[in-house]
Amino acid sequence: MYLEKINDPSDLKKLNIRQLRQLAEELRAEIIKVVSDRGGHLASNLGTVELTIAMHYVFDAPRDKLVFDVGHQCYAHKLLTGRYRSFQNLRGKDGASGFPQMEESEYDAFTAGHASTAISAALGMARTRDIMRGDFNVVALVGDGALTGGMCYEALNDAGQNGTRMIVILNDNAMSISTNVGAMSHYLTQLRQSKTYRGIKRGIRRGLGKIPHVGMPVFRFLEKFRDFLKSLFVDGKFFDALGFSYIGPIDGHDLKHLIRILKRSRDSQEPVLIHAVTQKGRGYQPAETHPDQFHGVAPFLVESGEARREGGIAMGRIAAKHLAELAENDIRICAITAAMPSGTGLDQFAAAHPDRFFDVGIAEEHAVTMAAGMASQGMKPYVGIYSTFLQRAYDQIAMDVCRNSLPVTFLIDRAGLVGGDGATHQGVFDLSYLRSIPNLIVAAPRDVRDLKKLVSLSASLDQPMAIRYPKSGEDLGPGIQAQQDFKIGEWELLSTGDHVMIFAVGRMVQLAMQAAIELMGKGVNAGVVDARFVKPMDEKLLVRHAKHACLVVTVEENVLAGGFGEGVLDALSRAGIDRPVLCLGVPDRFIPHASTTQQLDACGLSALKIAERILKRYGELK
Amino acid sequence: MYLEKINDPSDLKKLNIRQLRQLAEELRAEIIKVVSDRGGHLASNLGTVELTIAMHYVFDAPRDKLVFDVGHQCYAHKLLTGRYRSFQNLRGKDGASGFPQMEESEYDAFTAGHASTAISAALGMARTRDIMRGDFNVVALVGDGALTGGMCYEALNDAGQNGTRMIVILNDNAMSISTNVGAMSHYLTQLRQSKTYRGIKRGIRRGLGKIPHVGMPVFRFLEKFRDFLKSLFVDGKFFDALGFSYIGPIDGHDLKHLIRILKRSRDSQEPVLIHAVTQKGRGYQPAETHPDQFHGVAPFLVESGEARREGGIAMGRIAAKHLAELAENDIRICAITAAMPSGTGLDQFAAAHPDRFFDVGIAEEHAVTMAAGMASQGMKPYVGIYSTFLQRAYDQIAMDVCRNSLPVTFLIDRAGLVGGDGATHQGVFDLSYLRSIPNLIVAAPRDVRDLKKLVSLSASLDQPMAIRYPKSGEDLGPGIQAQQDFKIGEWELLSTGDHVMIFAVGRMVQLAMQAAIELMGKGVNAGVVDARFVKPMDEKLLVRHAKHACLVVTVEENVLAGGFGEGVLDALSRAGIDRPVLCLGVPDRFIPHASTTQQLDACGLSALKIAERILKRYGELK
Repeated sequence: MYLEKINDPSDLKKLNIRQLRQLAEELRAEIIKVVSDRGGHLASNLGTVELTIAMHYVFDAPRDKLVFDVGHQCYAHKLLTGRYRSFQNLRGKDGASGFPQMEESEYDAFTAGHASTAISAALGMARTRDIMRGDFNVVALVGDGALTGGMCYEALNDAGQNGTRMIVILNDNAMSISTNVGAMSHYLTQLRQSKTYRGIKRGIRRGLGKIPHVGMPVFRFLEKFRDFLKSLFVDGKFFDALGFSYIGPIDGHDLKHLIRILKRSRDSQEPVLIHAVTQKGRGYQPAETHPDQFHGVAPFLVESGEARREGGIAMGRIAAKHLAELAENDIRICAITAAMPSGTGLDQFAAAHPDRFFDVGIAEEHAVTMAAGMASQGMKPYVGIYSTFLQRAYDQIAMDVCRNSLPVTFLIDRAGLVGGDGATHQGVFDLSYLRSIPNLIVAAPRDVRDLKKLVSLSASLDQPMAIRYPKSGEDLGPGIQAQQDFKIGEWELLSTGDHVMIFAVGRMVQLAMQAAIELMGKGVNAGVVDARFVKPMDEKLLVRHAKHACLVVTVEENVLAGGFGEGVLDALSRAGIDRPVLCLGVPDRFIPHASTTQQLDACGLSALKIAERILKRYGELK
Repeated sequence: MYLEKINDPSDLKKLNIRQLRQLAEELRAEIIKVVSDRGGHLASNLGTVELTIAMHYVFDAPRDKLVFDVGHQCYAHKLLTGRYRSFQNLRGKDGASGFPQMEESEYDAFTAGHASTAISAALGMARTRDIMRGDFNVVALVGDGALTGGMCYEALNDAGQNGTRMIVILNDNAMSISTNVGAMSHYLTQLRQSKTYRGIKRGIRRGLGKIPHVGMPVFRFLEKFRDFLKSLFVDGKFFDALGFSYIGPIDGHDLKHLIRILKRSRDSQEPVLIHAVTQKGRGYQPAETHPDQFHGVAPFLVESGEARREGGIAMGRIAAKHLAELAENDIRICAITAAMPSGTGLDQFAAAHPDRFFDVGIAEEHAVTMAAGMASQGMKPYVGIYSTFLQRAYDQIAMDVCRNSLPVTFLIDRAGLVGGDGATHQGVFDLSYLRSIPNLIVAAPRDVRDLKKLVSLSASLDQPMAIRYPKSGEDLGPGIQAQQDFKIGEWELLSTGDHVMIFAVGRMVQLAMQAAIELMGKGVNAGVVDARFVKPMDEKLLVRHAKHACLVVTVEENVLAGGFGEGVLDALSRAGIDRPVLCLGVPDRFIPHASTTQQLDACGLSALKIAERILKRYGELK
């Protein structure tokens, strides 16, 4: 057992190739063991074990900067850099984060979570080195999936022109989160298979063969120039055009070869791109067979690969299934996602309407503007993206969709606190950044029942709309008033109260109702309103029920700054209502990984904490 | 004079080549005349006159969709599509917009303003056509500058894979807004000059020449395969890799050739990229000589090219000059911009510290994350970007800079209402989208004096900060209290008032003071506070002066939703202050082009309107 003896990468450097290979197997076993217990990213991490060993063997972290893109392949790195113990509690409160985090370890050169940033960050580091006359290497490890993101291209374009000394390792496992998309993916396949080269060779053979006296001898001569031709005509032309020296494709599991190539690249004075081909899920049969299903996983049984538990109903799947049904009778409805067909549940839509489904890769900006283009010609596009990743397309939502008031609907999954994925994945900003955009309707259903109603509502709408919901929800029943339907901007009074009036959004409605029950036990009578439209607000209902309350409370799973609560304050101010207001929401800091329950509690948003805080403020009023 | 007779593109189709050439000259004269009078984008529009004529000659708009990226090259298009009259009032209230706008004309297939969106939008249109079994062409015109934006790559990557029938015309004038940057720019130069091809030819000649009996004859044979080789080995490999058929480079001013190529491409069933080389500023000597100075211009004298008037002090130049001075003694200070060195004034920094200045092209996302990478290694990067374009990097500001609390400072130019550039360029969302991000300090100086102080303050700060200011400002003097210096979060009481207390941000401070004078004349005593920090707020000062006011007023040049006013409401609510509050700011709609004065008036933010609205609300209170 070598892994236990590795306290930092210097211990790794003492091993020989045979021992390193053994270490790779140990790392795989450890990753499978912990991820099956804790959940996390499996397939991508299994694929990059040898790459990570080679990186730490050749380079000298933390002096050399190793930048991991997205962070879906940083587990081996964490295990090799003194975090064996905290890795046992991966993604748990006070355990290792599932992503590289600067504050967690000096070996994590840059914090990641969103794709396609590593080359930009690494270029910044390399430029700093050159300005400060420093002497270290900068290495960015980027997956082929992340390469569909435009930022990578922006960074390669910038680095390549200036010839900044840095190394980009392209971890090509031929798929991003699900199967890879885009022409770049085909291009990489070409490089892998050298098909283009073979095609050109055939073309030349055919062309030259027709010329008497010159044909075949020339071809045989050209064969000798194989490498020369290959480098000139085929390999890496794309990266060459961007100013990078291309090396590859190489076997990303061949430790000896990897080490040799990395050593050679380390001494290069120019930007280098190493194209390493790896197998996603390597070493764990179920993940090798179904790498997409084992990208991000809940805890599972190692023997079978079966998930061990499933919490709640996947909201995205409900929305997607319902949308697919609506699309049966409406050819205008189409669905777009950015590399998340299964995460958003839109794979169901894809199965039903393959010609109206578009997975554009990790390219949120393009996804949104493409949707705007479709809507401009009469389609009703639905864009399914996680809340945190939709931040990437803020400008496109505002300028391309809402500026033109085009009927694009955003299905915003993973809104609110997300648990184990932590700070870089919290969906707690969307209400703020969306509320400020004109023409956009912003809604949040309290349960799966209302989610379906909202999707139906949006389908008949000639205006942009955002529907945000957490990963999993419940069916809370038809509501106190058994309200069958609702209009844009209509809230719902769920229970009345003389003392306190709670206006809650989305998943918080249920917690507010639980809090009301708690308060009842303390002699405080609290009513609850489902404020399902954050924009426009139901100002009539708000004023009617706020007017006579001793205390108005807002509860949202979003930062307070710019969120729902401030909108309520504004509406009440305009209406001249001066009742005391208590705004509850996510505080002004980044919330680290833990269970969702722990996070809600830490934010004071559990039912109990909500009740306590209301009680405290209510007490102060008297 | 043909131009006057062209009511729509069908009139254009009746002209012969000679007449079309004449039309091109007339268009140029018209553009020079109007832009010299009204200001606008000159050089890029002069460069694309023939391209636009050819597009309208070959294609059948509005049935065929012509999508203009950014819109810096849509003037000829506007003049040829029935907008001759409204063009005379270009960028003015009720005149033609300086950008394509769907609501302005059915010929404007998509609204633009921010770069690099055209291919995405066009792909959306083409996909809609294919789903709906429509029959029209989609053509996107994109400048080489816009091609530095990652979105273009995302869209090419998506379109190329799927082989969607569409045409991208690359308008290559060898510079974006100022000189072009990035490896792509070099690559295009290579294509233009066919250097690569010539290099390879030489390489082959040398290589083959060495082989006896085969050498030269083979080379001569290969020469015959020139076109075959050229297409296979060199030209457009980059675009080929992305799945586009590359045609070019062609002369973008040769009408006959352009028409022939466009006709040929029209019939292609695959995605085609046409590489047209144009001359920026063509036909107007000063613009040909200094195309960067004639990109976006204020009104100028046609004879000399000299600007006719200059309003206020350019805030960006003050900030950049001051920053360059600070950088003399602090090697950590560097500056980054996204294709706006002269617009942001950072060209002055570049001149003083060329090794610490980075223009990354139209790539705001990369710019911000690159800055984060630099800051992570000890630099103090300043990122100078216009407010509206910084929207592109919202996610990177939050996740890469603020998540890690890295000391990057954002110099946000063109904040607030921007006048003639209109709806797509208003810098009225930044306070909202920045306020919601943890760890970020958000400030707005009232004048150039405070701008310098804020820049100095940020230099000593180990935390991210945003400083937002309009294009031009003034020196308002040292302030009532002659306050010499201030700390983070510190506001300044400029005048006291018994009845009303106005808390104003940035440029609004001056207008608030004027409004206070107006109010004085009506017997209302209004005090003014410069709330220069939108985050963190000076809650002590706020509470102290709001507590006893009959009416609290907030004034900001930002949308109300999520803005400064709501922050004040929240702070007052938390402090238990229930004074009436009137929030003044930009209303919840997109504000069209007009003069800044007209826009302020339309938003109720002129000094007079501010006074009126305060008076009205104050009157209602009694």
